[in-house]
Amino acid sequence: MKIGGEHYRAIWQSQDGGVRIIDQTQLPHRFETVRLESVEEARRAIAEMWVRGAPLIGATAAFGVALAMRSDPSDASMAEACQLLGQARPTAVDLHFALERMRLGLGPLPESERAETAFEMARALSDEIVEACRAIGGHGLTLIREAAARKSGGRPIEILTHCNAGWLAAVDHGTALAPIYAAHDAGLDVHVWVDETRPRNQGASLTAFELGEHGVPHTLIADNVGGHLAQHGRIDLCIVGSDRVTRSGDCCNKIGTYLKALAAYDNDVPFYVAIPFSTIDWTIQDGVKEIPIEERDAREVLWVQGADPDGRVGTVRIAPDRTPAANFGFDVTPARLVSAIITERGVCEASETGLGGLYP
Amino acid sequence: MKIGGEHYRAIWQSQDGGVRIIDQTQLPHRFETVRLESVEEARRAIAEMWVRGAPLIGATAAFGVALAMRSDPSDASMAEACQLLGQARPTAVDLHFALERMRLGLGPLPESERAETAFEMARALSDEIVEACRAIGGHGLTLIREAAARKSGGRPIEILTHCNAGWLAAVDHGTALAPIYAAHDAGLDVHVWVDETRPRNQGASLTAFELGEHGVPHTLIADNVGGHLAQHGRIDLCIVGSDRVTRSGDCCNKIGTYLKALAAYDNDVPFYVAIPFSTIDWTIQDGVKEIPIEERDAREVLWVQGADPDGRVGTVRIAPDRTPAANFGFDVTPARLVSAIITERGVCEASETGLGGLYP
Repeated sequence: MKIGGEHYRAIWQSQDGGVRIIDQTQLPHRFETVRLESVEEARRAIAEMWVRGAPLIGATAAFGVALAMRSDPSDASMAEACQLLGQARPTAVDLHFALERMRLGLGPLPESERAETAFEMARALSDEIVEACRAIGGHGLTLIREAAARKSGGRPIEILTHCNAGWLAAVDHGTALAPIYAAHDAGLDVHVWVDETRPRNQGASLTAFELGEHGVPHTLIADNVGGHLAQHGRIDLCIVGSDRVTRSGDCCNKIGTYLKALAAYDNDVPFYVAIPFSTIDWTIQDGVKEIPIEERDAREVLWVQGADPDGRVGTVRIAPDRTPAANFGFDVTPARLVSAIITERGVCEASETGLGGLYP
Repeated sequence: MKIGGEHYRAIWQSQDGGVRIIDQTQLPHRFETVRLESVEEARRAIAEMWVRGAPLIGATAAFGVALAMRSDPSDASMAEACQLLGQARPTAVDLHFALERMRLGLGPLPESERAETAFEMARALSDEIVEACRAIGGHGLTLIREAAARKSGGRPIEILTHCNAGWLAAVDHGTALAPIYAAHDAGLDVHVWVDETRPRNQGASLTAFELGEHGVPHTLIADNVGGHLAQHGRIDLCIVGSDRVTRSGDCCNKIGTYLKALAAYDNDVPFYVAIPFSTIDWTIQDGVKEIPIEERDAREVLWVQGADPDGRVGTVRIAPDRTPAANFGFDVTPARLVSAIITERGVCEASETGLGGLYP
């Protein structure tokens, strides 16, 4: 997608072989790219959320392994890299998918070939993610067209999304936002309600930024607002991404997603989850019981980052000095609240039968 | 309640007859009291949320009429004062309750008696609110004791609240927080999950402040978190206040309340609404259709106030420069999601029968 008219991916390899990312902690106030030099820097980029979003975490982990292979292609180095990267974020399953794939692909190779192959594999994974997202966009577009057909009077199709599952989360196109970009580009009149997504405000800082750069009409709202809008017929459909989908169709995503799914269900609004294959965790059944939910630093709740009236980026504390805070990163939306899952292979019911039908 | 060991109400008349409030827009970073000199200042205090919370808005409106009567006790002045104050906030019905009462009480009096009587009436209304809140605390305490009895292993009783319905919202004691203070003071082991309450952060800035000053254990969370906690059995009950309750038991409260009620319902967690008599609007039936929902300035969503690392209070913008935002102040929780309503007269079903039983 484009920033200021120039095409970017959320991670790429530059001419000189360097791995570059956009430091997403600085958006929307500063646009800065960072060169990752080592597996430790890749780990830090994931853990400190310079990059985030399940597919992008996977791609970054793959490049992290490649960086490790460039400096030391031994088995020990590979094992250490996978362990280091695997612990950077506990919830996104794409991370483990990418590491497992790198391990399986590189393990049988002689050390002398590992670095070059690792970079090839990381680039290939990135390209696959981009292609999957493009396909998700196409399948989701069909659902948006159906919603448009149900709507009278030429009013815009109102779509709610939570967090950022756009191209910044997924190398290019995005998962949840891919159908929205596809609809906008196809000339459909879409308007997006952008959940702020506390505590890290990925909606306000990333989704609003992405949609704004692409020219998609949108309005920022507090995370509290979705229920009111759904009650008043002002949401035609919801689309979110996911960090891990169980084989039964439970969807783990950014904290607060479950609340929006409840509101959608209570008001007969379709609630879609858009994911590539790599986000499905076939090993687990019950998302609420089995998916580890990351707990992050309380400071992310207590301090809010933004630009002051003079444009300087800083943080302000919103609570009394000694107030304790808890910071759960994700929640699980049970399959019963999910209208359908959109993948690169099509649209299916959020169930073992549905997912199994697309991925026999 | 106390601040730094000194007893305060959220509005009071000082020895010299001045009406004083705490400027709640500055909490928790600065504790400042303000003297209201005129009905226009009372209107501004309500509209700009120096005072907020349905019962406190009512008390402030009553004092606002008294200030108008002090400067001009004519019928025209009274009508103008009521109109001015009545438009300051559209959702809280306590405002209209207070104004109607002042109008009925003062109308028949000769102009020479109006000012003195108006202040007496405003003080009496404040005292009534305080007594109602004390009674709400007692009735709610019974519900908390019941929850404690259902709980094994001596673990704390976990209570979720949204926004601020504490003494800062209700002259003293509070509505939703009154039972919590009563339980804490009775030696029950309570712990409160405090919703941040975007966009104005009344949870982070006011509820956390109140509970901290009173020594009630609590933890601040993003508004997105309640569903996750309810799913994992970490909430024993929810208590919130309300700005307007219909005769059928629909409860209008701070935006986001409906989402928490859905999460409570989905996980069999009791969801209570605590209100004094003045919050019931007997004239309407369907809260979603009939209650006007205030829309406030988009800047409240786009800019967050807090203290910087040096303690200076300021605001930061969390979204790109040109991002549009919408700011709905309230939502309506349908009666079907409310386990019970707690009033100064007792606990009742959220229904016309329930409310009618307490207020025949």
